[in-house]
Amino acid sequence: MRAVLFDVFGTVVDWRSGIAAAVRSFADRHGLELDAYAFADSWRGQYQPAMQAVRSGARPFVTLDVLHRENLDDTLRALGPDPGVFDPGELEALARAWHFLPPWPDSVAGIASIKRAGYIVGPMSNGNTSLLLDMAKAAGLPWDLILGSDVSRAYKPDPEAYLRPAAFLALEPAEVMLAAAHPADLAAARKVGLATAFIARPAEYGPRAADTGTATAGWDLAGGSITEIAARLEQGPH
Amino acid sequence: MRAVLFDVFGTVVDWRSGIAAAVRSFADRHGLELDAYAFADSWRGQYQPAMQAVRSGARPFVTLDVLHRENLDDTLRALGPDPGVFDPGELEALARAWHFLPPWPDSVAGIASIKRAGYIVGPMSNGNTSLLLDMAKAAGLPWDLILGSDVSRAYKPDPEAYLRPAAFLALEPAEVMLAAAHPADLAAARKVGLATAFIARPAEYGPRAADTGTATAGWDLAGGSITEIAARLEQGPH
Repeated sequence: MRAVLFDVFGTVVDWRSGIAAAVRSFADRHGLELDAYAFADSWRGQYQPAMQAVRSGARPFVTLDVLHRENLDDTLRALGPDPGVFDPGELEALARAWHFLPPWPDSVAGIASIKRAGYIVGPMSNGNTSLLLDMAKAAGLPWDLILGSDVSRAYKPDPEAYLRPAAFLALEPAEVMLAAAHPADLAAARKVGLATAFIARPAEYGPRAADTGTATAGWDLAGGSITEIAARLEQGPH
Repeated sequence: MRAVLFDVFGTVVDWRSGIAAAVRSFADRHGLELDAYAFADSWRGQYQPAMQAVRSGARPFVTLDVLHRENLDDTLRALGPDPGVFDPGELEALARAWHFLPPWPDSVAGIASIKRAGYIVGPMSNGNTSLLLDMAKAAGLPWDLILGSDVSRAYKPDPEAYLRPAAFLALEPAEVMLAAAHPADLAAARKVGLATAFIARPAEYGPRAADTGTATAGWDLAGGSITEIAARLEQGPH
């Protein structure tokens, strides 16, 4: 095990609070009545279907920035005023909220500990490189490197989304661990040979918390925070 | 100007001292009589011709690790014993010396200053991602991200080697500055719209110093170290 790469949305950052805050501020500026959390959930709800169009080959690769921007229009059509009433620059700025999401309280310290313990640390995310870079600089995430999904040109859980980053690191899949809050992501990584760490994030979807999985599925490591995973890794070679 | 990306071999690290030290140690272990600096210069001398085969399309893209390894065989054939007399693992280890080159004394502090001043910092090198990552971790180079030539699949001075990294950063070419010790590299970057900073490294080729260019060629910035360039950048927007 040489590298620990992290799912980002939900695992490292609290997308729901970050997006709801940006939507709240946008709504207030425009005098709109809307439930910012419901808006965030609906926007995020279109994430998997939008990527599925790319994964299935129905659509050539486009970045997550493009998908987030399109999905914002769809969310507005469903829950708010028609997107046509806004200045395009304003919608662009709102969609950029995905670049500036707040980390969970343990994320920066946990990633820094894993880095100090000698592992390579980086994201393994469906985000594009510039999104992940903006986020890292704003949140102080101490990544060694950032290879976005636009480098792999593949969206998880496609095998290439796990295997291409490993290849860029010149590592075997088993030398790379995916740390993630989502069992489906971990299962796909395990299937192509990566090691896995489950990080429980019960607050990802807020108080109406969906069950995001448990520690009993046989992951190599499991914990309630990145600092917990760091402590396990510091105990020595996995 | 949002990002300052650096040529690495010669500009950030002292490849000649690092390679000569590795060659010296290899030669001593095998009881070989050879001039370690001449060996390093010969090995490096095959760098441009080897990449030219890829740039010209005569050969599909292969990483710089592959080229360094092949060039080591050629250098041995020219200056030492036939490579066939060594264990392949030993030659592989020697070629990996390119991953662990010493930075110039001002490099770490200079890059850190430019990062603190709010710029994105990273390499813009012909090195592959895993080489640049090993080097960054060993030398403490505080890059925000590492996109090796294997991500762009192009070797400088090909235009794509400058333009693809800018595109991954979602920046216009003019928002990216190349900092380099080599006028040909800077000229190619300028031709496709990047800003340029010349860093004089008269010791790159050792005491028999070739003239590596001067500050008079109209680069946007010029200095004798990365810390000097950092001081200029800290004075405000370029």
